[in-house]
Amino acid sequence: MPVVGHSALQQMVAGIYAAKGLAAPDASVVSRHQVEANLVGHDSHGVLLTAQYVRQIDAGEINVTAELEIEAESRGTAVFGGNWGFGYVMTEKAMAVLADKAREVGMASGVIRYQGHMGRLGGYADAAARAGLIALMTADSGRGPKAVAPFGGRTSRLGTNPICIAVPAGAYPPVVLDMATSSVAVGKLALARARGEQVAEGLILDKGGNPTTSPVDYFAGGTILPLGGAQGYKGFGLSFIVEILSGLLTGLGYGVAADGRHNDGSFIALFDVRQFRALADFRRDVDELIDYIHASPLAPGAAEVLYPGELEARTLASRREAGIPVEEATWAVLTGLAEGLGVPLPSAR
Amino acid sequence: MPVVGHSALQQMVAGIYAAKGLAAPDASVVSRHQVEANLVGHDSHGVLLTAQYVRQIDAGEINVTAELEIEAESRGTAVFGGNWGFGYVMTEKAMAVLADKAREVGMASGVIRYQGHMGRLGGYADAAARAGLIALMTADSGRGPKAVAPFGGRTSRLGTNPICIAVPAGAYPPVVLDMATSSVAVGKLALARARGEQVAEGLILDKGGNPTTSPVDYFAGGTILPLGGAQGYKGFGLSFIVEILSGLLTGLGYGVAADGRHNDGSFIALFDVRQFRALADFRRDVDELIDYIHASPLAPGAAEVLYPGELEARTLASRREAGIPVEEATWAVLTGLAEGLGVPLPSAR
Repeated sequence: MPVVGHSALQQMVAGIYAAKGLAAPDASVVSRHQVEANLVGHDSHGVLLTAQYVRQIDAGEINVTAELEIEAESRGTAVFGGNWGFGYVMTEKAMAVLADKAREVGMASGVIRYQGHMGRLGGYADAAARAGLIALMTADSGRGPKAVAPFGGRTSRLGTNPICIAVPAGAYPPVVLDMATSSVAVGKLALARARGEQVAEGLILDKGGNPTTSPVDYFAGGTILPLGGAQGYKGFGLSFIVEILSGLLTGLGYGVAADGRHNDGSFIALFDVRQFRALADFRRDVDELIDYIHASPLAPGAAEVLYPGELEARTLASRREAGIPVEEATWAVLTGLAEGLGVPLPSAR
Repeated sequence: MPVVGHSALQQMVAGIYAAKGLAAPDASVVSRHQVEANLVGHDSHGVLLTAQYVRQIDAGEINVTAELEIEAESRGTAVFGGNWGFGYVMTEKAMAVLADKAREVGMASGVIRYQGHMGRLGGYADAAARAGLIALMTADSGRGPKAVAPFGGRTSRLGTNPICIAVPAGAYPPVVLDMATSSVAVGKLALARARGEQVAEGLILDKGGNPTTSPVDYFAGGTILPLGGAQGYKGFGLSFIVEILSGLLTGLGYGVAADGRHNDGSFIALFDVRQFRALADFRRDVDELIDYIHASPLAPGAAEVLYPGELEARTLASRREAGIPVEEATWAVLTGLAEGLGVPLPSAR
């Protein structure tokens, strides 16, 4: 598998977007978020998506010259319209507007609608936390195809509806909880199917609503269960709230739309820690809580106790050093795109 | 089992608190929250707790004349000090301050510290939702005894750390998600032990960190697992965030304090829907989403699909009509307290 340095990889991907008409700063934002997803180990949101985005640009589904619009605002809130621009670009700009508001009135919140894919929520929330804010974000994929059943149901009526909360720490990287409210991600099911493997019990139903461990059953009209197993009403409850914040508070709607255009609805809230406590004291306390959790006696079979986001922070440190492994197929597509657009190729190990 | 009308029950409990020196409006707030917990079917937070609160008043742990203090504030935030008053009274007053701020700047958030037990979060959040606000609340029990292990750990380092989110609906009662981030509540384990029953797999560990279904093992030094089973890192992640918002942003701290005084730390955020969309349109869309979920084809064995808070709303409607069943032991204690304090007794069926 080719292993590519993160800067070189980002430069190539940014070059592809620039060649497709995206302004240089925006191309930098999109490629940075994708490469960061690879760095933290979430490769499903990494450079793999570049080819799809290029297709969406070509099809006019992503508007590379879109400007973020503030459709309505109060001192502490804003409704943003993305004009079908890249979700990454629109969300970065919206975060900056909300951060200014939060510094002024103590907290701020907003919704974004009519934008393309915004990728991992963790990247935005991590950056906000480093700047001394607590960030809460939710997203759905607008009225795209659904994958998750409500608790007690047997058909998909919700997305994997992620919720993300990030908190500043001190010496440690920020606490970043970035979780789907489903019991499993679609990507993991696709991987298991490709490898001919079964998945654990309690994650999916077949099209008749019966429990199954076969990922093939999921792709043949099955559905994913909400987080929590027998307590799945809790995972469903979280998912339902995410749907409301991202789909209804934005005015985008629920269920599946006929046009199927990718439309990431998002809700964001930022809280300025300084309005509650001295930031340095808070950061120190978060570090101490992390130490307290790290020092937990281990359950049999467990290797260590990690805080939310710690695994990703470790992977990032290691891949920054060692480079990012890119699957052969993805690398072939990426380099093909770059060559076709006259973008210089980085060297791969 | 005695069955008592909710108004009569509340009047008796309010009478007990008034006799212990609580001002009439405050006695009304505390008793209303407790009886509402009974009405929605969460009897562990109901009038059962009256005797404990009376003991805490007698021991000086709850200060019946405490006033809510605003220790710090900005346009959109506030830090409240409860001066060891009843959590119910302090939290009601804090909610009112924050609702005013939210109406002014679009949203508001605050923390409360140094207060007694605040009970169910759902009651406050439900009331805020009825007034057109989206409410997010978290709480821990300060530095009281812990019950839940971090994911991978085998000893209790966190509380059951509830998170509550309520959203206005239209014709339906509000959406109220009010969930512990643990896989099971301590009360359910106590009930199973009292009945000599086993609990489901995947909820608790014994003191050696091994999975068990015996509630006796939990009370003999075991621990509760976070929500999510094999995905318990998600439940733990939510719990860790609740600990930070309720324990650290309040400055109260984590872990167990030597004095063991009950000290509910709480974080509250309120969002004014009107700053995002016309409230009537939003309420209509929430109703439609509820209809969409209700219409889900059912999984084998499921009787219906309910939205978060629906079961509680139904129980409330039925108990308002039929009265509240109060266990013999609780009724004996309550009536004994009332008689001793010269409070008139209601009739029970």
